[in-house]
Amino acid sequence: MKLKTGVLGATGLVGREIINVLYNRHFPIESLRLYASERSAGKTLETPFGRIEIENADNAGYSGLELAFFAIGHDWPKANAGKATDAGCTVIDNSSTFRYDADVPLVVPEINPEAIGDAKLIANPNCTTAIAAIPLWHIYKHFGLREVRISTYQAASGAGREAMEELEEETRNALDGREAGHNVFQYPLPFNLIPQIDAFQPNEYTREEMKVVWETRKILGDDAISIECICVRVPIMRAHSESISVKTREPVDLERLTEILGHAEGVELRDKPEQNIYPMPLTATGKYNVEIGRIRRSLIDGDYGVSFFVCGDQLLKGAALNAVQIGELVAARYGQRGA
Amino acid sequence: MKLKTGVLGATGLVGREIINVLYNRHFPIESLRLYASERSAGKTLETPFGRIEIENADNAGYSGLELAFFAIGHDWPKANAGKATDAGCTVIDNSSTFRYDADVPLVVPEINPEAIGDAKLIANPNCTTAIAAIPLWHIYKHFGLREVRISTYQAASGAGREAMEELEEETRNALDGREAGHNVFQYPLPFNLIPQIDAFQPNEYTREEMKVVWETRKILGDDAISIECICVRVPIMRAHSESISVKTREPVDLERLTEILGHAEGVELRDKPEQNIYPMPLTATGKYNVEIGRIRRSLIDGDYGVSFFVCGDQLLKGAALNAVQIGELVAARYGQRGA
Repeated sequence: MKLKTGVLGATGLVGREIINVLYNRHFPIESLRLYASERSAGKTLETPFGRIEIENADNAGYSGLELAFFAIGHDWPKANAGKATDAGCTVIDNSSTFRYDADVPLVVPEINPEAIGDAKLIANPNCTTAIAAIPLWHIYKHFGLREVRISTYQAASGAGREAMEELEEETRNALDGREAGHNVFQYPLPFNLIPQIDAFQPNEYTREEMKVVWETRKILGDDAISIECICVRVPIMRAHSESISVKTREPVDLERLTEILGHAEGVELRDKPEQNIYPMPLTATGKYNVEIGRIRRSLIDGDYGVSFFVCGDQLLKGAALNAVQIGELVAARYGQRGA
Repeated sequence: MKLKTGVLGATGLVGREIINVLYNRHFPIESLRLYASERSAGKTLETPFGRIEIENADNAGYSGLELAFFAIGHDWPKANAGKATDAGCTVIDNSSTFRYDADVPLVVPEINPEAIGDAKLIANPNCTTAIAAIPLWHIYKHFGLREVRISTYQAASGAGREAMEELEEETRNALDGREAGHNVFQYPLPFNLIPQIDAFQPNEYTREEMKVVWETRKILGDDAISIECICVRVPIMRAHSESISVKTREPVDLERLTEILGHAEGVELRDKPEQNIYPMPLTATGKYNVEIGRIRRSLIDGDYGVSFFVCGDQLLKGAALNAVQIGELVAARYGQRGA
């Protein structure tokens, strides 16, 4: 069934990608309305669907919408999601606002599509979580998961468009012998890395790191999995990479795991080290599938351990693509009701 | 005692840093001779000791030298170390050639200075190993070490001067909209990362990754420690970073560990997350001490686990500084004999 669809935060990095992905995946759109801050309202945005006028998100009337993608951060979703759902519009929220609410499903469609149930408000996971979740899910399903250790290599795009522009501009400054400045990031990012993303919590982990812990458990539906993560910003534009080591409940047959991941939805296996084929931002950028490779037996946990490297586009599987995939589940639900 | 000192491979990145460090640390030099490939022989090199003529390393006569720093890779040390030691010259070799020989000490002076004994040939560890070794040593000594997991963020300098030049030049190309090329690295490095350093071994780990395993055990003197590592090249100039998680034999008192590391030789504690103070290439570059921070309780191993982040200059503690520190031990040994 075709849906009256809105994108709230349409001028941001993620909002724009949502529009592109809606177009590229032939999402069943009845009509598309775009919303952004008051500053942008009245302007038009060039999209694959044509030029569309931007409306003020604060004044959005949801009675004319069946599906709304929220791609606005901070406090905005808290104040606005209820207006939408009260009007009968289903909301897919890209922020972390509702992700930890017990009655809000947190969905990666390849993993827990059934979780959407009848929910009118569905949360899209954190980018780092979404990119790691698919391989973790397959390992969990087939071999069980006891422990997950993640070290990330996160791109600038996770901090928005200004962050990408800052990386580009300040890299130019650094190359030209001027001091690289910073405004979006805590420190200059060119030729540097920053082992902090989001604010520190009392346990000395950042909120970004704890999101990975909380969200992975919620998506896999198992709070008994021990997870630990360090999130590091690196001077890369828009693909996140993650070094992951897991300890399983059952012995892992590496050949079987590779076979499973090779056929898994949403995965591109790049695991031929002898041919220098492994995941990289260079190849993962712009791709829907998450790249997985460097799959190897743990040197610590033996048969019960496997380590690997993943790389995924932060704006696609890490944000817009996953949101649109959830939208496709919502559209199918509308279709079933209509039938 | 002042030593007749030679630097073999004096025109390379590491060779030049050795000369600088010898000068900055007031190394007891009687005379300094510099050697490089035939191509450079006869030219002169500007150094803090003045302008020095470069001699052909292949024809080096070692009878006039008491101490030789080898900073030439591949097969050269194998063919030449014996000539030096036969002539009574002590060799500190920066390559991996002899590191795994049972009768060749592998030394990080803050950890196992006594290992040099009477050896005429002493190996300098791999850069990634040297940078991680000091915190690991203190944890090992005070709490015991069962398991060590490392994910690295390694700078271009580890692949030599051409690699740094390539990163700079190709970053310019990328920013100017031209395709970034590559020659030193397997793929373009600007705004990318490459999860491969050195060649893959039959176990699907690279040689660089296995060096960290073998060398850390040898330096700490305990083959029972389980170690696993993934080595990743990132678009950073000359400081390596490492995300490290360890499991200990005894419960770790985090305050005590921080206190110990805060007073440890060769360490700069940068561990005030609430003030955004943590290790970074930006601050670690050019520094002798290795930066340690993000020290936190493991979310998996509880009292028996601690995770942290280290960052060290690849050319200093990762290479030249450690070699000169070994040289200082050799000079002291000469001094004792002379006494």
